[in-house]
This record gives sequence, C-alpha cells and structure tokens, in this order.
Amino acid sequence: MDKYIKNGERLDDLNINGLQIIQNPRKFCFGIDAVLLANYATVKPGDKVVDLGTGTGIIPVIIAGKTEASGITGIEIQKDMADMACRSVMLNGLKDRIKIFVGDIKDVLSFVPEGTMDLVVSNPPYIGDGHGLVNPDSGKAIARHEIMCTLKDIITSAGSVLKNGGRLTLIHRCGRMVDVLLCMRHGGIEPKRLRMVHSRRDKKANLFLVEGIKGGKKHLNISKPLIIYDERGRYTPEVYRIYYGGERMQG
Amino acid sequence: MDKYIKNGERLDDLNINGLQIIQNPRKFCFGIDAVLLANYATVKPGDKVVDLGTGTGIIPVIIAGKTEASGITGIEIQKDMADMACRSVMLNGLKDRIKIFVGDIKDVLSFVPEGTMDLVVSNPPYIGDGHGLVNPDSGKAIARHEIMCTLKDIITSAGSVLKNGGRLTLIHRCGRMVDVLLCMRHGGIEPKRLRMVHSRRDKKANLFLVEGIKGGKKHLNISKPLIIYDERGRYTPEVYRIYYGGERMQG
Repeated sequence: MDKYIKNGERLDDLNINGLQIIQNPRKFCFGIDAVLLANYATVKPGDKVVDLGTGTGIIPVIIAGKTEASGITGIEIQKDMADMACRSVMLNGLKDRIKIFVGDIKDVLSFVPEGTMDLVVSNPPYIGDGHGLVNPDSGKAIARHEIMCTLKDIITSAGSVLKNGGRLTLIHRCGRMVDVLLCMRHGGIEPKRLRMVHSRRDKKANLFLVEGIKGGKKHLNISKPLIIYDERGRYTPEVYRIYYGGERMQG
Repeated sequence: MDKYIKNGERLDDLNINGLQIIQNPRKFCFGIDAVLLANYATVKPGDKVVDLGTGTGIIPVIIAGKTEASGITGIEIQKDMADMACRSVMLNGLKDRIKIFVGDIKDVLSFVPEGTMDLVVSNPPYIGDGHGLVNPDSGKAIARHEIMCTLKDIITSAGSVLKNGGRLTLIHRCGRMVDVLLCMRHGGIEPKRLRMVHSRRDKKANLFLVEGIKGGKKHLNISKPLIIYDERGRYTPEVYRIYYGGERMQG
C-alpha cells in the first residue's frame, strides 16, 4: 500500500468493504458533506456518473463501493488533488470503474460525451465569489470559494453531459438555497427532491441536499429532515448507518 | 352577538383574548395554514399590515389579537366572504384596527398607498391554474386554485405596497417552493427566512412558511422544522401553544 502514499498524506478507512481514501490534512480532507451527498444520490445499476470537482475522489470511491454504477468519472482542476484521487482509485482496485481527469469542469465535454450521463454529483465550493475571507492555502480556497468555478458553471456543465431525465445531485449551504434552486431551473434541471440537514433536531439547517431532473416536471418533494447528532452529541442512527453501515451498539 | 351571524354560519373561538371568527362551513373554513402563517409573521408594534386574499379575515383577527400592529387591511375578492370578515371585525370590536375591502388584490393600490406597508401576509391559492380538479363550489375553488390571482400577482402586489425593508410572509405547498422562491426574488423580495412544516417528525414536509424582505440581501436562513403532530397524534407542544396559547395538561 505504501507505494501509493506520499509524505504528509494519510490513509483513512471508509467502512465500506475495506475501501480507503488517501488524504492530506494540510490540503483538504473530505467532510460529512461528501459522505451525505454520495449517500443521497440515486444510483441505479449500470449508471454512468460524473463528479464535478472530485477533490480526493471521495464521492466516486463511495459510490463505487455502495452501488452498481458502471462507470464513474471524477474531474478535478487541482493537479495534486487529482493525483491523490488517482492513487486512491488504484489502491482500492477501482481503476476499471473510476476515471479521474485533471481539468476544468467548464471543459467537461472534453472528458465525457454530451447528453450521455445518468447522474452528475457535485459538492461545490459553498462561498460565492467575493464573499468571506479567502483561505490563504489555495487548495482549501479552491475547494471552498467560487474561485475556479461558479454554481452556474457547475449546473451548465451538468446540463450538457446529462441525458434527458438524468439527475443532478448537489449539497450546498442553506444560505444559498435560492441561488441553487433558481440556477437549476434556469439550467433546465428541475429540482425534484430536497432534504434539509440539521446538526441537531432543534437547530436551524446548515446544509441541504437536492436532486434535480433534466427536463423534469415542476414539483418538489421535501423529505423528513436529516439530523446529524442526537441529544447526547452522538451521530443519530441514520448518520451512524451512513458512516459505518450498521447499527450502533447500545450504551 | 346574534345580529352579526347569518343563516348557515357559525361562531368559532380563537383562544386569543376571547376573539371569535364567523365561518360558513359550506363556503370555506380556515385551516391550520392560516393560523401558522399569522404566528410566523414578524409583527412589530405600530406595523402597518396587509392581508392579500383575507377570506373570513382570520389572519387580521389573529394578528390584531396577538400583536401591536397599528392598522391591518384585508382584501378579499369574494363579496360574501368579505362581508363575513367585516362582521367578525365588528363582533370583536376591532373596527379601529382592521379594515376589510372587497376587491381584486391586483388593484391593491386602490386601497393602500404605494410603498407604505411594513408587512404583507398571504395564504394564497395553492394549486396552479390548470392543475387538479377544480372544486365546483366557486368559493372554495377561488380560495384553493389560482383562478382569480396567481402567485406572481400576489408577489407583484406585495412589492408595490411594501416599504423598502418591508416583509412578505407566505405559506405555500412544498411542491411549489421553487416557484415561490423564484417569484419572490424576481419580484425584488428576497427570501430570508424559511421553515418547513411536517405533519409528523418522520414524514415529508407538506407546507412551508417563508419571509422575504423587499430589497433584502441574498441569504436564506432555514429554521428547525415545525412538526404538527406527535407520535400519539396530538398537537406537538409548539402547535398546541400556537392554538391555545399555553401548555397542554399532562395525560
């Protein structure tokens, strides 16, 4: 395994059939967002999937581990991140199912044929260009701020590679929900399914998950809220199952 | 009191300082939606308020009973409903605080001066024109279907009477959330506060409450979900408090 891991990197277990991911804490580590998104996406056997801004490749690896998607493409603009993602794919023996490309998501049609994908997923930068303090570490900044791509770029790219009836699944901050829903509708990807993510039952929502359908009819379903922590500060049974694939022991 | 009540009508207690409302079950009775909306709206002392499509006047009467709004205007296109609302206002001794007008909300500027209101509320027809079976009873149909006014009419009218910084508060079905949020933003009333309404904790949301601010900055806050019934099918403590103004006895 060590041949895949470089200085400063670490190997984390994903609790899915022995799958692991290489990360560099100085650059960017995946958060709960990526895990929730990978689990929220509807993936049918044989589906062709693209992850826009794949980072360490965490979403393709989880989807490969949990579903029968036939081919998953991850696109990442940061060369060192894409390189790490490639090594995680190799290390997990997933090179037949996952392809990682270094490139700009705006050039998605250089990597994937137009109108052919069943599912596009993306955990995009949350912070609009010009908002908030930009993290001086450019790797983290590119992951968090709309420096290299905007919401509109992501939705336009998704629209170009999706089949009619194909799905776009995103996670984003609630503060930008109006932007996301508008941008999806304007891009011809109708929001159909939405779920709020609350850290605790009695707290405001931080994040939301949304699934849109290219060319879908106008009608939104809002599921029961997803709660991360229970009253004792432990993962709720639902989140525990997402992370560890089973039920927690009592106590 | 009997002088105010016509044949086929009944008088219902609102559990707010003895306030009552006249209703005709053959025409339209207010639902939980109106009560939730009246309670969700932010009303400051001295506020000038308009209710677009006031029906029986339920929302103005609740707001008058629970807040220090200085003047509340209700506009209703159905003459018999507006007449019933007027009688409820008289019966409750609220004629100095609530004015009811018979008219089209599209003509709101005939009743209220432009750019002067602090708050507009509306419990609009939920069903888009051309969708669903139209109730053959035209009173109920006008309340439920976009026959006499559309979402866009309501938001345009609200925009014309609100001050800059004034609030629009709506309740609507989740299925139309994208329409509502888009229409608000396009109408210059930015959605700022949103709350999902779930019949039970583990069920999908049916309705949502939203507050927009005319000329507001783009940023949405999503509160903890509002749950109507507990596991035993009783109102949750929060809804019980909204309806009855206090805590439920144990048992």
